[in-house]
Amino acid sequence: MDKTNEIERLIYIFSKLPGLGQRSARRIVLHLLQDKEIRLKNLIDGLALVNSRVVKCRICGNIDSYSICGICSSTTRDASLLAIVETVAELWAIERSGMFKGRYHVLGSALSASAYATTEHLRLTQLLNRCESEQIQEIIIATNATLEGQTTAYFITEYFKPHNIKISKLASGVPIGGELEYLDEGTLSAAISLRQPFE
Amino acid sequence: MDKTNEIERLIYIFSKLPGLGQRSARRIVLHLLQDKEIRLKNLIDGLALVNSRVVKCRICGNIDSYSICGICSSTTRDASLLAIVETVAELWAIERSGMFKGRYHVLGSALSASAYATTEHLRLTQLLNRCESEQIQEIIIATNATLEGQTTAYFITEYFKPHNIKISKLASGVPIGGELEYLDEGTLSAAISLRQPFE
Repeated sequence: MDKTNEIERLIYIFSKLPGLGQRSARRIVLHLLQDKEIRLKNLIDGLALVNSRVVKCRICGNIDSYSICGICSSTTRDASLLAIVETVAELWAIERSGMFKGRYHVLGSALSASAYATTEHLRLTQLLNRCESEQIQEIIIATNATLEGQTTAYFITEYFKPHNIKISKLASGVPIGGELEYLDEGTLSAAISLRQPFE
Repeated sequence: MDKTNEIERLIYIFSKLPGLGQRSARRIVLHLLQDKEIRLKNLIDGLALVNSRVVKCRICGNIDSYSICGICSSTTRDASLLAIVETVAELWAIERSGMFKGRYHVLGSALSASAYATTEHLRLTQLLNRCESEQIQEIIIATNATLEGQTTAYFITEYFKPHNIKISKLASGVPIGGELEYLDEGTLSAAISLRQPFE
């Protein structure tokens, strides 16, 4: 093999990114090398800019160019409503829907069956402090509909029980465009028992 | 949307890489941001190293850390045998097979039906010079088995006709692991007419 170590190393780094493997990483590196001056340089510049500017919001855990993110500092968002998400990925997904006008609390991760569950782990004391100091009226638990996500949701509701805050969760049901034939029984059961009046 | 411009820009750059789209690019950027100090920094360093070190070989067109690549400067490779490939991607693929011990000539691209075909375009004068100065005995045309690749192969053989050099091409046939049912007629025809004695 004539590929130099630095190329091999770069292919390796790419191959470890989510969704990529050895073949796709090699293809990307070749693509970058075939127009080094533009493609490679653009990517380096883009990464360096993100590296130097992007920080974690110290209120909600979102990532942004400011230590208090655009959502937390926005005056037009509903300050009484808080969505609890596992990671920034879910925060972005909810923002893309455009339906949520409150603010967020990013847990950092979900509880897993193997990990020891602590309130610190999910930044729940910070969350409780926020609820009190910011006079939050309602928290929407928007963890994933996975075992870990639901365990986390249950854990949070238990934690908040002694406190007088309204807690809600995302609706379960048939996803838009979903075909009943391919849905799991759990989703169908939820969709039937939570059926809505036809308007 | 709360994502900053630099993050959006980085997602855009990733989404333009081969095999990636908006969703996978977003996933990768989030992955990088979730462990900025290690993941993002590693990728930047890997890219910067390749950017500063990797150059095109001025003999064959391969990419390596030296202006004369490891294959061209190797003394153990067969100097009388030259494989003609379209791009560095095919050179790497042949190197991975471990079967070829000669050297290469990277055309840079194949001829396309729309582009005007010139000998300069494929660096054929350099190739001819090499054949003469390096006393090449045989060139193996290893362009892709696509329309463009085969047009290019034909063009090269025509170009070399007046010169006394043995020209060969890669064998056509059933790929290892290939199922006859799913092969195209052209491949099957070639495999039948070029059938080999069973040994």
